[in-house]
Amino acid sequence: MSFETAGKPITCKAAVAWEAGKDLSVEDVEVGVPRAGEVRIQIHYTGVCHTDAYMLSGKDPEGAFPVIAGHEGAGIVESVGEGVESVKCKECKFCKSGKTNLCGKIRATQGKGVMPDGTSRFKAKGKDLLHFMGTSTFSQYTVVAEISCVKVTDKAPMDRTCLLGCGITTGYGAAVISAGNGGIEEGSTVAVFGAGCVGLSVIQGAVKNKASKIIVVDVNDSKKEWATKFGATDFVNPAKDLKKDETIQARLVEMTDGGLDYTFDCTGNVHVMRSALEACHKGWGESIIIGVAAAGQEISTRPFQLVTGRRWKGCAFGGVKGRTQMGGLVDDYMTGKLKVDEFITHRQNLGGINQAFHDMHDGDCIRCVVDMQKV
Amino acid sequence: MSFETAGKPITCKAAVAWEAGKDLSVEDVEVGVPRAGEVRIQIHYTGVCHTDAYMLSGKDPEGAFPVIAGHEGAGIVESVGEGVESVKCKECKFCKSGKTNLCGKIRATQGKGVMPDGTSRFKAKGKDLLHFMGTSTFSQYTVVAEISCVKVTDKAPMDRTCLLGCGITTGYGAAVISAGNGGIEEGSTVAVFGAGCVGLSVIQGAVKNKASKIIVVDVNDSKKEWATKFGATDFVNPAKDLKKDETIQARLVEMTDGGLDYTFDCTGNVHVMRSALEACHKGWGESIIIGVAAAGQEISTRPFQLVTGRRWKGCAFGGVKGRTQMGGLVDDYMTGKLKVDEFITHRQNLGGINQAFHDMHDGDCIRCVVDMQKV
Repeated sequence: MSFETAGKPITCKAAVAWEAGKDLSVEDVEVGVPRAGEVRIQIHYTGVCHTDAYMLSGKDPEGAFPVIAGHEGAGIVESVGEGVESVKCKECKFCKSGKTNLCGKIRATQGKGVMPDGTSRFKAKGKDLLHFMGTSTFSQYTVVAEISCVKVTDKAPMDRTCLLGCGITTGYGAAVISAGNGGIEEGSTVAVFGAGCVGLSVIQGAVKNKASKIIVVDVNDSKKEWATKFGATDFVNPAKDLKKDETIQARLVEMTDGGLDYTFDCTGNVHVMRSALEACHKGWGESIIIGVAAAGQEISTRPFQLVTGRRWKGCAFGGVKGRTQMGGLVDDYMTGKLKVDEFITHRQNLGGINQAFHDMHDGDCIRCVVDMQKV
Repeated sequence: MSFETAGKPITCKAAVAWEAGKDLSVEDVEVGVPRAGEVRIQIHYTGVCHTDAYMLSGKDPEGAFPVIAGHEGAGIVESVGEGVESVKCKECKFCKSGKTNLCGKIRATQGKGVMPDGTSRFKAKGKDLLHFMGTSTFSQYTVVAEISCVKVTDKAPMDRTCLLGCGITTGYGAAVISAGNGGIEEGSTVAVFGAGCVGLSVIQGAVKNKASKIIVVDVNDSKKEWATKFGATDFVNPAKDLKKDETIQARLVEMTDGGLDYTFDCTGNVHVMRSALEACHKGWGESIIIGVAAAGQEISTRPFQLVTGRRWKGCAFGGVKGRTQMGGLVDDYMTGKLKVDEFITHRQNLGGINQAFHDMHDGDCIRCVVDMQKV
């Protein structure tokens, strides 16, 4: 906590998106004082994720501008608003249910790009800027609701643990928390569609839970090496490896004597989601949607697929309850049980953040970490 | 067992479907001797089910003619083929998995209308007739694979327990076995779409498992009384009770402060299946498809419905393992825990079987039981 800056607005650098589909612009922004239940954080490192790119492209119906994006961040608390010593989540039926990690308390305002009281803490060029995902980590300082941040050990290197804020946790949690009843069972067969950051983390989770077979499906051959490095046992490129008129689901069913116990969509493509479901074993196979589809797109299948015992579900943030389970993931990283460093293929300073987005669309970039304190 | 008839073909009456879409014709049929692993049964009573009607209509791509339909039957074993003292199921991975009631052993030949050895046991007018669902209960004698029949107490009245062969078990099992992890939890909210035999049995299961709210959705107002009698707490007729531009899912979400814990489709209509899914509570709501859709029809929804925690699944025969769990259901009926008599609104003799099909399409007929030994 800094007593010099507490109680006053802070002017710092942030990457501002003035409008959809344009490069971000590094600007001086004014970051307001945290109000009741809020925390102001100096962001040290942030990842760059496809969800940021999707919103910034203008295709996300919830996207609104001008906005400060970014949601894989790690930093240090600078000051707090009134009442922040108390933990204010666990009040509503979502937390109480024990069946979900979704939060009913903050979703409505967060989706509108404002703080729970309906206002913004960011200003630039005389205009209010919107928040994104309740985090806005593309700013050197940000303000978040207390229930949107989680304290982790200060021994954890922030230039690595920032990535636990989204992609790695999402894939890993999908495999060890969301699948089945609390994770993939030992000996299960698993297929992972899409071997980006999320898909590779699904592999990590499948390896941890001792899956017997982990088939990775990706149209990019360069992902085979990545998949193998993380523990996949097989790789199929549906753009090259299928026979004439053979579908990827038919191939996978053949490879596994009837289909998979678990499949994961990490692509956001609704046609892939269908293939992932239909590659499941009759009677018990379960498909988990992780990828975010473009607005308006729909999944479909014959209901017979479900009547004969396949299950279709999905998860957000891997089903991980950030406030209570993130500490355990950081510990797993610190003790060598969870790979994080391996995902970092690129690094940039704040001034290079647009390059980070360009690199993300190339197959050889898994994750780029941005040093927010260097412009 | 009858020593007079064992080892010889039996000529008896059966309701034969010579072609799709036509009335059944009561004919003399010759029922062959049961071969190895087979059982010949004198059918005393059979129910008439929408699945029979669907196949007989010619819309079922697996339907083939001429055929003897019927699959809700109760009767007495007349004679058995070689090796029938041994229980031959539990050999393949479906039985071994413990996760499904589907049978991988008999499905292929059963779907083709023949016995496991690829031949038929029925002849009429010099032609082989096909079997249906491995049962063909619309004949006074039928031959089934040993693994397709289950022995129950001879104290159970066959004119009632025949109905446990499909509809009642399907709905009840969906609620107490397939939903969640082994049945609806106490205090859950439930919606049932379609209050026919299956839907009313879902209500029974929901009542047994102590659901806190059971909303029945049906376009036929006369079903309200039925639903209430079986234990429903609310009834909505989407053809009459909705506001302008209001969807049934929106109404149900409003009635339950966010959506239901469990919904069941008992209609076979793919649009209803979508509504049932979207009426589920974010984070944990689960929708179970029981109804059989017409050939080629598909279900669809936005993947966001699943990513935000809803689950879509289905079941056949309620997830009940007939060979091991049917005895328990018969016991529940005998001890007054499971309603069966209440479903029987109509009765016919074999000669009146076409009238039974006509009556089934009327709202006031839940189940018609046919006395097979009276022509």
